[in-house]
Amino acid sequence: MLRDKLQHKIDFKTKPLGALGALEKLALQIGLIQNTESPTLQNPSILVFAGDHGIANEGVSAYPQEVTFQMVMNFLNGGAAINVFSAQHNIELKVVDAGVNYDFPANEKLIDSKISHGTKSFLNQKAMTAFQLEQCFEKGKEIVTTQYQNSCNVIGFGEMGIGNTSSASMLMSSLCNLPIEECVGRGTGLNDTQLSNKISILKQAKEYHGPIEDPKLVLQTFGGFEMAQMCGAMLEAFEKNMLILVDGFIASSVFLVACKISPSIINNAVFCHLSDECGHKLLMSHFAVEPLLKLNMRLGEGTGCAVAYPIIESAVAFLNEMASFESAGVSNKD
Amino acid sequence: MLRDKLQHKIDFKTKPLGALGALEKLALQIGLIQNTESPTLQNPSILVFAGDHGIANEGVSAYPQEVTFQMVMNFLNGGAAINVFSAQHNIELKVVDAGVNYDFPANEKLIDSKISHGTKSFLNQKAMTAFQLEQCFEKGKEIVTTQYQNSCNVIGFGEMGIGNTSSASMLMSSLCNLPIEECVGRGTGLNDTQLSNKISILKQAKEYHGPIEDPKLVLQTFGGFEMAQMCGAMLEAFEKNMLILVDGFIASSVFLVACKISPSIINNAVFCHLSDECGHKLLMSHFAVEPLLKLNMRLGEGTGCAVAYPIIESAVAFLNEMASFESAGVSNKD
Repeated sequence: MLRDKLQHKIDFKTKPLGALGALEKLALQIGLIQNTESPTLQNPSILVFAGDHGIANEGVSAYPQEVTFQMVMNFLNGGAAINVFSAQHNIELKVVDAGVNYDFPANEKLIDSKISHGTKSFLNQKAMTAFQLEQCFEKGKEIVTTQYQNSCNVIGFGEMGIGNTSSASMLMSSLCNLPIEECVGRGTGLNDTQLSNKISILKQAKEYHGPIEDPKLVLQTFGGFEMAQMCGAMLEAFEKNMLILVDGFIASSVFLVACKISPSIINNAVFCHLSDECGHKLLMSHFAVEPLLKLNMRLGEGTGCAVAYPIIESAVAFLNEMASFESAGVSNKD
Repeated sequence: MLRDKLQHKIDFKTKPLGALGALEKLALQIGLIQNTESPTLQNPSILVFAGDHGIANEGVSAYPQEVTFQMVMNFLNGGAAINVFSAQHNIELKVVDAGVNYDFPANEKLIDSKISHGTKSFLNQKAMTAFQLEQCFEKGKEIVTTQYQNSCNVIGFGEMGIGNTSSASMLMSSLCNLPIEECVGRGTGLNDTQLSNKISILKQAKEYHGPIEDPKLVLQTFGGFEMAQMCGAMLEAFEKNMLILVDGFIASSVFLVACKISPSIINNAVFCHLSDECGHKLLMSHFAVEPLLKLNMRLGEGTGCAVAYPIIESAVAFLNEMASFESAGVSNKD
């Protein structure tokens, strides 16, 4: 059985049993996904989905909505954190305009996948129509298929969208059945007054829509176009049996939706970092996982995936490259 | 003032204030060490100090003493975990024979720095003489000076030496004034009986030697040649104002000695990972630091330094390469 063979290969590397900790678990997981004792990571890529949110105009964010398009321009010009970290690790970076309130000039990094210029405010209506949600799923799927056809087998998902921690909190609160307060954080940096304002707005929205359990309906009601496309993309990455790198709070909330739709997707997921955004820790314990990194980051953009990527490479590298006790002539414990 | 300038540079990168967490602290630290707003990491290297321990013959380790030389051969042949991870990140790897019970053939990776074929058992005598300790400090210094002359400004320290978690526990117990039980772990994998045997042997040794406070005398009494050379090397790396990467339990116990001798060395140190070896967590809280990684690793060899290195590179990269709000035309919070 492959699991036993992989575990044996890991255990007989020249190191005490279990001494590489999380790297050993990763190596096992990736071997099982790829159905081989010698897995590889090929053409890693990160997709940063961007979209604008109607809810952003209700004062839930510390930054104005135009920061979404400004940051997309920053991605396209190579100046953002995700540019730096993905370049550092030779990760291909694609930016997806899923629904930003701005019309971008063509750019080789940009994938035009715009649904509209932003969602509706979910305060008193659904953020998007059912048709738009389906469009998002289709488009997310297509984008991942292209990456897959380019021999990519490991893919990270990041996002940019002023207001989208509010959406993420609503997804989490709905699908984990948790009070909104436990799912809300300071986002890009709210002060105490702004935070309680955010909570009160989200409570209002929750009351307006009532309890929703269907994951797609939750996404349609509270999500952003960037989140819905990411969800479709994650599901397709799972279909294509890729390794899925989950970033911070927002990406994890989208993964939660994907996981409700297709629970086995969790087998292909690596939770890259524990965000400093309040709520993410609770969300991680919902999945009963411990993210690889805890660096107090809370930036999104897929930065957690990019920064964690070399650790994932280390896991694959030790499995493929380290000597065994036998091959190295080292005495084992027994 | 440089600190303010660096903090300003960090704060005005296109990200919410503090959103890169630990990377921001690292960037500030490295900038301050190098006295510049644009620090660089040059010719990173890891020195793996190896030595044998008289105490290893008292049954304190799960592995026989010959594993020390076998693993050194494994390092020289490129088959160990540290080979894989340092190659992954273009880190130069040097293996230092500080006192292994074996005579190695010449090898370009090997630095012959042998004091003798192993320390005495500290159960009822000092592990080394005062003269040997001074030799170790001198040799450690020389090795770092060579790396420095090769333009290395960031250096990690690993070790290999069957029995050396026992030495590390004794250093920690002595210098932190903690009961030995709180400083002892399972090392390479002791079972319960073996662990209580280890504790009882170390208690016996502590009783025999009585309380010792002088850091050098502690190192002479309980240390290994690889640990003493590492201590001299760390002190010299600080003299040369290099960035010092501290690995797991053993390297941290050596750093403790170095820190007692020269307290400001802590300004130059990055604690790379929290080892799964019991005692390391307590040692980290003694320094009031939080290591970068928590991957449940407990292997030594400098593997924690190597695996953490790309994170340190990320810190320097964002500081040098990310756009500012102004340069990117992104609206700031205010």
